[in-house]
Amino acid sequence: MTRPGPTVRVKATISTPEGDRVVEDRVAAEEPLELRLASPGQPASRAWVTLRTPGHDFELAAGWVVHEGLARPDEVARVAYCTDEDLSPEQAYNVVTVTCAVPVVAPHRHDSFGSGSAACGVCGKDSLEAAMTVPRGPRWSGTLPAASVIRELPEVLRSRQPAFDLTGGIHAAGAFDAQGRALVVREDIGRHNAVDKVTGARVLAGDASPAPLLVLSGRAGFELVQKAVTAGYAGVVSVGAASSLAVALAEQAGVALWGFTRPDRCVRYC
Amino acid sequence: MTRPGPTVRVKATISTPEGDRVVEDRVAAEEPLELRLASPGQPASRAWVTLRTPGHDFELAAGWVVHEGLARPDEVARVAYCTDEDLSPEQAYNVVTVTCAVPVVAPHRHDSFGSGSAACGVCGKDSLEAAMTVPRGPRWSGTLPAASVIRELPEVLRSRQPAFDLTGGIHAAGAFDAQGRALVVREDIGRHNAVDKVTGARVLAGDASPAPLLVLSGRAGFELVQKAVTAGYAGVVSVGAASSLAVALAEQAGVALWGFTRPDRCVRYC
Repeated sequence: MTRPGPTVRVKATISTPEGDRVVEDRVAAEEPLELRLASPGQPASRAWVTLRTPGHDFELAAGWVVHEGLARPDEVARVAYCTDEDLSPEQAYNVVTVTCAVPVVAPHRHDSFGSGSAACGVCGKDSLEAAMTVPRGPRWSGTLPAASVIRELPEVLRSRQPAFDLTGGIHAAGAFDAQGRALVVREDIGRHNAVDKVTGARVLAGDASPAPLLVLSGRAGFELVQKAVTAGYAGVVSVGAASSLAVALAEQAGVALWGFTRPDRCVRYC
Repeated sequence: MTRPGPTVRVKATISTPEGDRVVEDRVAAEEPLELRLASPGQPASRAWVTLRTPGHDFELAAGWVVHEGLARPDEVARVAYCTDEDLSPEQAYNVVTVTCAVPVVAPHRHDSFGSGSAACGVCGKDSLEAAMTVPRGPRWSGTLPAASVIRELPEVLRSRQPAFDLTGGIHAAGAFDAQGRALVVREDIGRHNAVDKVTGARVLAGDASPAPLLVLSGRAGFELVQKAVTAGYAGVVSVGAASSLAVALAEQAGVALWGFTRPDRCVRYC
């Protein structure tokens, strides 16, 4: 049993006005990951299922727990693949258990029917108010770089996306320092997952301190700013557009937010 | 009280190497929507919360119910904004109740902690197997258009995206006929929501028959192909990449799948 990789070979037909040809193509791997949570006196129980690109699974799990405000970075005690005997080896790589050093307080318990499903990041919350609630950790404090530095960051991110080079279709996120240097970059088919992996990488490396900047290959929606606020980033730099709610949350939380960022132009929303 | 629109004005600073200037910009509106389900003998209860771009909310709700396999198109009896007296007028436009003509069978009931959250479309499912389960409706049967027609469809979609014209950052999806004509096009900050709105528009117009093609402004991930399979589209045409699981599901379900579609080139995965 080999662990699944970030890309998968598929047969495809390329059609142009000149005709068709069959090729072997590479696409980004997408597989479900089930996250289980355990804490002192509490056995592991299913907390979340996501579709993610395999690789850096422990970071994804740790980052998700921190971004959800379930535990602080230094309270993530252990992350492991599931060892249940009733799981096939393939399934075992798709089930990760995060053990927290503190009792995990569920932020949104559901009793009623079908309370969680298909949206990104706010589904499963108990009410509209709860969806807007953002747990806040310590924030990075310091001077953010000038716009001239900010405008270059997506290019730096782009230069560190090997799975994108192969597939042309996978998101990336990166934590950057105040000089505009990449601290960690991660790729995932889900842009939310990529952000979880970035924060999780720092958490598992024992660096619980917040980083200055979060750089995103795509758009800045509410939930990505939400993760940035919880993890303590001081600014969010996105290649694409920002949403109204992302702008509102960034303003409320005092997080700097840039959109449409490229070498010759960027837009700062707050 | 005015209903929220699809775009919002914000103040922004555009930074170029030549300097900064403050502008009034438009961003895509993003607001939470709570969906409640009711059926004979069953009072309305919360089923889902999503972040969506306001507008076509009833279509979003109806399409989601159909894509989730909770009801067939002809079983969606009524869709309405909430009239609870304890909701502010603003909140009332963010709560939609779908009444089904049949008892709604919950596809994924949760008892345990935090069973639903942050991913797109598979979170909240009870297990990895359940996440892979795709309810299937009747499929459109006929001859799909040639690649030369397929390659033009994203341009047709693009010509019908007024909110994208204003913001530069909002997704779109469209149902197309076998001659490559747009039947309905909808925009949303969430690409899953855009697809829900498209199918929902047909459902609420009383057209329960499946359409030939679903065209997407972004990538084709598993969940979008899942919605296409459930709603009976015969093919999915995406501007961006396809994921491994999207290709696998399309193959299994016999749905045609194109990626990286543009006038001079497209890639057919199956």
